[in-house]
Amino acid sequence: MQSIQTLNFLKKIDSYISGEEISQSLNLSRAAIWKHMQELRQLGYEIIAFPHLGYKLVSVPDKLLPHEIQYGLGTKLLGKRIDYEETVSSTMDVAFKLAMEGASEGTVVCAETQTKGRGRLGRQWASAKGKGIYMSLILRPKFAPVEVAKLTLLCGVALTETIKKTAGLQVSIKWPNDLFVNGKKLAGILTELNAETDRVKFVIVGIGININTALAGLPSVGTSLKNETGHDHDRVKIFQEVLRGIEKWYLRLGEEGFLPVIKKCKELSLILNQRIRISDPAGSIEGEAIDIDQDGGLLIRQDSGVITKKMAGDVVRL
Amino acid sequence: MQSIQTLNFLKKIDSYISGEEISQSLNLSRAAIWKHMQELRQLGYEIIAFPHLGYKLVSVPDKLLPHEIQYGLGTKLLGKRIDYEETVSSTMDVAFKLAMEGASEGTVVCAETQTKGRGRLGRQWASAKGKGIYMSLILRPKFAPVEVAKLTLLCGVALTETIKKTAGLQVSIKWPNDLFVNGKKLAGILTELNAETDRVKFVIVGIGININTALAGLPSVGTSLKNETGHDHDRVKIFQEVLRGIEKWYLRLGEEGFLPVIKKCKELSLILNQRIRISDPAGSIEGEAIDIDQDGGLLIRQDSGVITKKMAGDVVRL
Repeated sequence: MQSIQTLNFLKKIDSYISGEEISQSLNLSRAAIWKHMQELRQLGYEIIAFPHLGYKLVSVPDKLLPHEIQYGLGTKLLGKRIDYEETVSSTMDVAFKLAMEGASEGTVVCAETQTKGRGRLGRQWASAKGKGIYMSLILRPKFAPVEVAKLTLLCGVALTETIKKTAGLQVSIKWPNDLFVNGKKLAGILTELNAETDRVKFVIVGIGININTALAGLPSVGTSLKNETGHDHDRVKIFQEVLRGIEKWYLRLGEEGFLPVIKKCKELSLILNQRIRISDPAGSIEGEAIDIDQDGGLLIRQDSGVITKKMAGDVVRL
Repeated sequence: MQSIQTLNFLKKIDSYISGEEISQSLNLSRAAIWKHMQELRQLGYEIIAFPHLGYKLVSVPDKLLPHEIQYGLGTKLLGKRIDYEETVSSTMDVAFKLAMEGASEGTVVCAETQTKGRGRLGRQWASAKGKGIYMSLILRPKFAPVEVAKLTLLCGVALTETIKKTAGLQVSIKWPNDLFVNGKKLAGILTELNAETDRVKFVIVGIGININTALAGLPSVGTSLKNETGHDHDRVKIFQEVLRGIEKWYLRLGEEGFLPVIKKCKELSLILNQRIRISDPAGSIEGEAIDIDQDGGLLIRQDSGVITKKMAGDVVRL
């Protein structure tokens, strides 16, 4: 979109600037500048035009527009391509299709709302329109399929840091894939993979974060950044930090492997050293969550002394 | 295709039968019968029409037509739907797309040839036109992703039995996914999965068997049933046995789990108790292949005494 160039120019100017000056600086015709202003306004940008003074950008729309996320993003890998639509069935489905067609590592899909947003095991993910971050990220790690569980933990660690940095909230990781604050679910991670038996072809990491969502739009166990802090948050800024944070931890894997992720994940864990019940299709067991091991699995010590390892499951604190 | 009804009727008759009799038996007009004969001939069926005697089916085309595979198949699950095209890029790609769109368990994709037939790790699979079986099967087992490796072994076991039954050849399983006869590769299995971290959504099992392929159309390590036995084989009959065989072992899983598969796989193994080298992206190690464990992994004892477990890799006998 050509008008992005004009937009980015306006962003650098804190005062009014004449169409003539923009035209000269960008080497574009006055007619082109005028057309760009119309385009930007249609996207929701508020641009004042004042006789003799010129144009001024007053506000940007509260949308997850790719060029806004990419503006000043500074990542090497994630978000070089961002596919955005107002409404999708599920960002997972869109990203999966793109990945099958060969989309490169780091490609991101996001939307203002999802009609069939989903969580683990096909459960629903509430996607209040324009209030949260609903994104899916394509990664192509050189992993065996079994390693993908650790990638969920990696994203969990990155997200806790992001929330701390952008909203000042201390978030815990509820193994394996949820983020909790003050006992309520703030965000979830859904990891899907496409693999041969011994190597991953691609992974789609889905991330849902409740940002400015009203409590009424959330399940009973849910909360949002707005609900926890009492004010709205800039979704684009948080989105950028999510991408930077995941990239930082992901690029570290090459040098240090998953051990720093596991270590951090244990520090941030909501359930470690707690008495829990964990349920999965095989049944449910109770005991103490004693460790997250090097595979990212949870070790549970039952009252009999037997220690069981689980790679996933629904955990309840008792 | 309506003419299938007429075809199946002709198959039951060993001699000539008049159009009038077919028409009355099937409650179809003479014009419809005539049209069916034309359709069938276009598919490659040889049907003689003799004045005063009527029609006789003389030969069926050497093609993997779905209705031929389904004729007398008798399976409960596999092959209820068979998608067939003369030429595809890869049956894996077609099946993957169908599975993403929700195709049910047991759906089969097959073709006469593949322009991009593939094996493990993206390697090429030679697909001489009309000479082999190139198929992909959609399964939706209630597994964790790690269990899928055992599904490859299950199909290997089923295929060895199929080849034994239909061609009288003793075939060995070269762990993890190839079938060998007289030191040469006869068939290969490629298993791809789509999963969440803790549950499989679907598995695509790809099977390539060299049936009537000339040696010139195969890689140097390859062989075909024709090459081993000296004569052509009926691809449709073998295809049917493949489906019946995999179904038999797959349905057993519900009651008995994978242990009978692993047991059989060890009996049929080409490399067990042999000195081997196994290579994967992590490097290669040498030692004795001492066991296939309950996960379907190969245990290798190196000279140092260290025992290493591998879930996949390229194995060479030393």
